[in-house]
Amino acid sequence: MSGDDSRNARSGVRMDELVSLCARRGFIFQSGELYGGINGFWDYGPLGVELKNNLKALWWQRVVRERDDVEGIDSAIVTHPRTWEASGHVQHFSDPMVDCKACKKRFRADQLDDAPPCPAREGTSQHDFTAPREFNLMLKTFVGASEDAAAVAYLRAETCGSIFTDFKRVREVSRQKIPFGIAQIGKAFRNEINPRNFTFRSREFEQAELEFFCHPASSGEWFEHWKQERIRFHRELGFGEDVLRVRPHDEKELAHYAKAAVDLEYLFPFGWQEIEGVHDRGTFDLTQHGKFSGKDLSVLDEDTKERFVPGVVETSVGIDRTALALLCNAYAEEKLEDGETRVVLRLPAAVAPIKAAVLPLSKKLAEPAQSIARELRRSWSVFYDDAGNIGRRYRRQDEAGTPFCVTFDFESETDQKVTVRERDSMTQDRVPISGLAAHLRERLSP
Amino acid sequence: MSGDDSRNARSGVRMDELVSLCARRGFIFQSGELYGGINGFWDYGPLGVELKNNLKALWWQRVVRERDDVEGIDSAIVTHPRTWEASGHVQHFSDPMVDCKACKKRFRADQLDDAPPCPAREGTSQHDFTAPREFNLMLKTFVGASEDAAAVAYLRAETCGSIFTDFKRVREVSRQKIPFGIAQIGKAFRNEINPRNFTFRSREFEQAELEFFCHPASSGEWFEHWKQERIRFHRELGFGEDVLRVRPHDEKELAHYAKAAVDLEYLFPFGWQEIEGVHDRGTFDLTQHGKFSGKDLSVLDEDTKERFVPGVVETSVGIDRTALALLCNAYAEEKLEDGETRVVLRLPAAVAPIKAAVLPLSKKLAEPAQSIARELRRSWSVFYDDAGNIGRRYRRQDEAGTPFCVTFDFESETDQKVTVRERDSMTQDRVPISGLAAHLRERLSP
Repeated sequence: MSGDDSRNARSGVRMDELVSLCARRGFIFQSGELYGGINGFWDYGPLGVELKNNLKALWWQRVVRERDDVEGIDSAIVTHPRTWEASGHVQHFSDPMVDCKACKKRFRADQLDDAPPCPAREGTSQHDFTAPREFNLMLKTFVGASEDAAAVAYLRAETCGSIFTDFKRVREVSRQKIPFGIAQIGKAFRNEINPRNFTFRSREFEQAELEFFCHPASSGEWFEHWKQERIRFHRELGFGEDVLRVRPHDEKELAHYAKAAVDLEYLFPFGWQEIEGVHDRGTFDLTQHGKFSGKDLSVLDEDTKERFVPGVVETSVGIDRTALALLCNAYAEEKLEDGETRVVLRLPAAVAPIKAAVLPLSKKLAEPAQSIARELRRSWSVFYDDAGNIGRRYRRQDEAGTPFCVTFDFESETDQKVTVRERDSMTQDRVPISGLAAHLRERLSP
Repeated sequence: MSGDDSRNARSGVRMDELVSLCARRGFIFQSGELYGGINGFWDYGPLGVELKNNLKALWWQRVVRERDDVEGIDSAIVTHPRTWEASGHVQHFSDPMVDCKACKKRFRADQLDDAPPCPAREGTSQHDFTAPREFNLMLKTFVGASEDAAAVAYLRAETCGSIFTDFKRVREVSRQKIPFGIAQIGKAFRNEINPRNFTFRSREFEQAELEFFCHPASSGEWFEHWKQERIRFHRELGFGEDVLRVRPHDEKELAHYAKAAVDLEYLFPFGWQEIEGVHDRGTFDLTQHGKFSGKDLSVLDEDTKERFVPGVVETSVGIDRTALALLCNAYAEEKLEDGETRVVLRLPAAVAPIKAAVLPLSKKLAEPAQSIARELRRSWSVFYDDAGNIGRRYRRQDEAGTPFCVTFDFESETDQKVTVRERDSMTQDRVPISGLAAHLRERLSP
């Protein structure tokens, strides 16, 4: 782990600068901050929700809609407890914890070096630890009228759990044949003992997961296919080889059932960290759920008459982590010709929260400018701003990552043209109002 | 409550028919059904997730993106417990429950007529109830390393809670002035004792809520404005006056702080039921959160120099309930000219899960047909199907609510035209392939 003053390799941004920008501009801030905050939970503000929704929509487009062989679902967060018995989470999804007998605080047994001194033992200030015990990371709740063990249910620790339990139903209703995949985007929850690095390790987070079901003999090929697809996706987000690497798991890291696994890692200011995992999980998942449910989850190959339990290739990307990587990657501080400095988020247009800002040069021009904004809003997220000097308004849009600013000036009423300013190059084009939507469309969806 | 054989006033569908269609075609089915199901939780399958996402996107477009005066957010589901102390949920969000001392089962005190006989008292079969006690409906969980009371957090009972706690931050970052609104779509959770009517009353559900902050003296006008806006939205979904009514709350129903409230009710097969509420909540929410947080949530009117706590007009629509209403409303069973019967979902194009199906008349035409499907997928959710006779393929798309079927036949290769069949009228147009996207666009987004 790098220190607090580490900078992003590409953009040079420090985490504290990014956290501050996110709070100041309303991308992301601590949940419940009015009440002092709740550790490990984050809220997305007006710009953040658009960024995250755009990222999710792009994933859905590439992984589900553009393909014949992937079906989407959206399952409940509160899940049947047997789901997590079959997956092994109830027994094994835990961290080793120790308690201090003096101050009653609890710590991760593998992170005791980070523990502050014991406030209850003035003489030595050293903790008096118990032996390590396993602490399950799933969040549990109680469903139904009684609060006894029978009614325990878990907030899903990952979205894929219900993909496996819904496999049989989805295959039947979609009439898909192996190989095909089931995909889902949604919230998952883990009771991290030590949430850290802004939204990177939080207790509530969003995943986009694909489970691709195939003949076990062909899982190696599909693993390669999906690894390449997912790398392509991250390249599309602007993550070049300098900041995105593929790290294969070594033997020790692999789960006992896994045949292969890679992490796609982004170079955050706090170091290389996983934002996506691609795993060849073998037949573990459907075998387990078949065993625990007593249902037959095998499939019949109609050509070969072979009956088999499908293998699974999983791609699992953290939406919050990828959004954080996008912000790190996009951040730039630039000296301008006039000596001023600007902060600009060079976000890819597809994920930029606002696609265009409409800025009348004077409040007197509000009416025609608003009419342009109204028209553009039919297609895009558009911001209207008529307050303050135009330079400062450009700066605010740069900081929000808005690709285009449309300025309506005093000549616009006579020549029916507006000035379109591009965020990164700051070049300005004079464009007829009648062709404005087409001009933007061409540049926003290449 | 109407009986099980009640039919929807408009479409004539019975709930059991609709539930069966939803399971068979993969719109919605019980969560965890592989393990016998978990009561009150539902999963959306391949068609359901598209329907629900389209509905959410339409709401976001109308309520957030098309307006200058509404900001979106996306906050955490697990919320700071003080949020629900301030709102009154911890103290008052409860149902009266009784326990049977003989069989240990628990029942809602106001629904004892529905209770089955007591299995533990053979002589009388009557329960031996305790006095009623209040049972809180919020789902709780434990966050952090210990499972004591200090670490209790709640799954939000409604999405608006964090809109109020984020009000100050969002107003500052967005530089909005009163009047303006904050909107959010997301999951909420209630431990309903008796989930029923399919997805209508479930324990996990999705809401789309807007809190519109205004001067308390103008809340009446804004209440009217938003009531009309929301009615307009439901009309856009195809809910006419025969199935959607506005029911004002009477004095007894109004919360002590509320100034006015209406329910927008849809006529389900099980009767008129609320799918949306529009409420003038007065200054209750920000006053409470100001009191509980010790922060000043008042605002200053820069013109009049008046400082005041904003009033709130709330619109709160159930996404699952509205999706259910859409399905009820769209369902039709029709006798065709050839004597056959078809089931068709007459869904508005904007929310239809699949916008177009591409159907080659023969598998030999798969290649050019797939190339058309690939092209259309850049804009829409498109289904490709080359198996079985064409009539049966039309039927399957009718049942899925697909507005257009594009048939590629043996002449298509020579005349470069395809047949576009419209779902409701079943009329067929011969359309040049080069103009197909434009033809569909015109009809899909009027």
